[in-house]
Amino acid sequence: MERRAWEFLGVEVPIIQAPMAGSDSVALARAVAKAGGLGSLACALLTPEQMLGAVREFRDGLDKPIHLNFFSHTMGAPDASAVERWKSALRSHYDRLGLDIDAVGESRLRLPFDEEACRAVEEIAPEIVSFHFGLPDAALLERLKQKRIKIFASATSVREAKWLAERGSDAVIAQGAEAGGHRGMFLEENVALQTGLFALLPQVVDAVSVPVIAAGGIGDSRGIVAAFALGASAVQIGTAYLKTPEAKISPLYRRALDSVGESDTAITNLFSGRPARGIANRFVRESGPMSDDALEFPFAATHVAPLRAASEKAGSTDHMQMWAGQAAALAKPMPAEELTRALWDGAMKLWEQSGRK
Amino acid sequence: MERRAWEFLGVEVPIIQAPMAGSDSVALARAVAKAGGLGSLACALLTPEQMLGAVREFRDGLDKPIHLNFFSHTMGAPDASAVERWKSALRSHYDRLGLDIDAVGESRLRLPFDEEACRAVEEIAPEIVSFHFGLPDAALLERLKQKRIKIFASATSVREAKWLAERGSDAVIAQGAEAGGHRGMFLEENVALQTGLFALLPQVVDAVSVPVIAAGGIGDSRGIVAAFALGASAVQIGTAYLKTPEAKISPLYRRALDSVGESDTAITNLFSGRPARGIANRFVRESGPMSDDALEFPFAATHVAPLRAASEKAGSTDHMQMWAGQAAALAKPMPAEELTRALWDGAMKLWEQSGRK
Repeated sequence: MERRAWEFLGVEVPIIQAPMAGSDSVALARAVAKAGGLGSLACALLTPEQMLGAVREFRDGLDKPIHLNFFSHTMGAPDASAVERWKSALRSHYDRLGLDIDAVGESRLRLPFDEEACRAVEEIAPEIVSFHFGLPDAALLERLKQKRIKIFASATSVREAKWLAERGSDAVIAQGAEAGGHRGMFLEENVALQTGLFALLPQVVDAVSVPVIAAGGIGDSRGIVAAFALGASAVQIGTAYLKTPEAKISPLYRRALDSVGESDTAITNLFSGRPARGIANRFVRESGPMSDDALEFPFAATHVAPLRAASEKAGSTDHMQMWAGQAAALAKPMPAEELTRALWDGAMKLWEQSGRK
Repeated sequence: MERRAWEFLGVEVPIIQAPMAGSDSVALARAVAKAGGLGSLACALLTPEQMLGAVREFRDGLDKPIHLNFFSHTMGAPDASAVERWKSALRSHYDRLGLDIDAVGESRLRLPFDEEACRAVEEIAPEIVSFHFGLPDAALLERLKQKRIKIFASATSVREAKWLAERGSDAVIAQGAEAGGHRGMFLEENVALQTGLFALLPQVVDAVSVPVIAAGGIGDSRGIVAAFALGASAVQIGTAYLKTPEAKISPLYRRALDSVGESDTAITNLFSGRPARGIANRFVRESGPMSDDALEFPFAATHVAPLRAASEKAGSTDHMQMWAGQAAALAKPMPAEELTRALWDGAMKLWEQSGRK
């Protein structure tokens, strides 16, 4: 393991705390950065003002790189018949929870990286910006490059990795099917063809010349060592950080994570309209995991938001959105700074041992 | 990497050539054994006489352990309405290929390990017997143990691994979702919850005290090193051996394997009634990958056999059964003895390099 493998990250420790929209926090990113890893903030649910405020808070007395993550989807308004189909599919859940589906209001939608976001990012000048669901318009990307911001993006296949590298990604995040949260899929459409990290990672490494970051299924030091063996230059870890006290998640979600096994999550499109891995609760099992009725991303979320809220209020996880990866059980709950150090120290120890053969 | 990690295998090199019913061969098993790995023969499609003959041939002038693999399902005859439903589901494919679905005869079915097979195995006294789909009756298992035959079995979840270890498996094969061929699932029922090797392997290693063999997604030396990093004591490799000249596969299948990418396979129940990973050809995409209409294992195969044969005869892979894992593209075609040595030498070299940091 030579240090220069992860020089492109600009940090001491090649561990990226995965950006997790709605669950990460400035405290989490700061803790990871203090341990030498790369702290991240998901921005899909933040206004430019919130983004500026969060980064100011991150940088307060801390001289570390920051990684901002955006979604780069397009927003097509769904037609009325699709909305009706989605409402029909959800009606039994509404009835069970005693809610009125025709009284659903607006809700905060995941927004794509656009002119407004780009201006805020230019002002912030973060060291790294990453994208999920492909890349934004070339003109916006070029403006980030002008600011010497490094661009990372997620790939779920060799084809997506090549596409990203050819269009200026400075690193590719190979996202194995084990990963919690949204699949980065943008050329691939069929979740049944999504690939496990073990097979995906070395094939992506062979296909592109930029550094490859391994994501999905990495929950402890063994996973870090294995990812580097398969050719990764760094790892991105999500679910393990959800278990830290710095993660901004509800007590019910936190408790569910404590007992989620390797076979308890599924890739579902029910919560947002795009495939994402989360705990396979009652809602996911009864109406999914994949549903043809789910409205296009991100609009499916609007009619699921009241179900999620009512479920949580009633003390039930049945209809909650609980992103989690298949390696959730490997991570022990501990503060994020301690976790980052433990993950890396453990990996160093394993390398030493294997070198002693 | 200490040698004793794989002492339980009784071979020099901790690489098991995966048993592959219908595609492996005595020549393949001998070649792997000569290179120091563990040669295997799938027996689900063999009569006791064929089994005895194959092992005699394997042992001819060769003093190496042999590994026999069996399926341990139960055979419930399907009812007439289920047969009709399956025929309806297949009718359009029959029409396209100009075949008569009502003229389908008997075909060779995958048989479970039974009294007859047990007697043959007692006579053969192989060093290792492995099972897919759980374990056979305790009485049969005990007879194998009396002969000092080591028992391995496949697990696709932590729960299955514990079940197997508690019932006398001397090693557990952790089969990641990347694996080609039949999923070993016997307690798990939902393919949407199946786990990638990266997440499955360390969780199985933590859950059982017997040695764990990693399977699924391992196609080159990097995969071997990664599997050991995640806690494996040996690896089982299938698809890479399908590309060797010793594998008994059709030229069309062989050619398809040459170009199968990481996202070109799916877990389908269309060919046998049980989930198995193979190349997602026209048949799989149009009628699957998973179908509620597929007859119970192994009976679905009967009505698919004529489609497969006609497809191959017409020079088309559209309806062929072509098992393959997600790491198919990692393996280069070469003789099996050479492949085994290259895989292991490459792994040793990678360990040396990581030790030199």
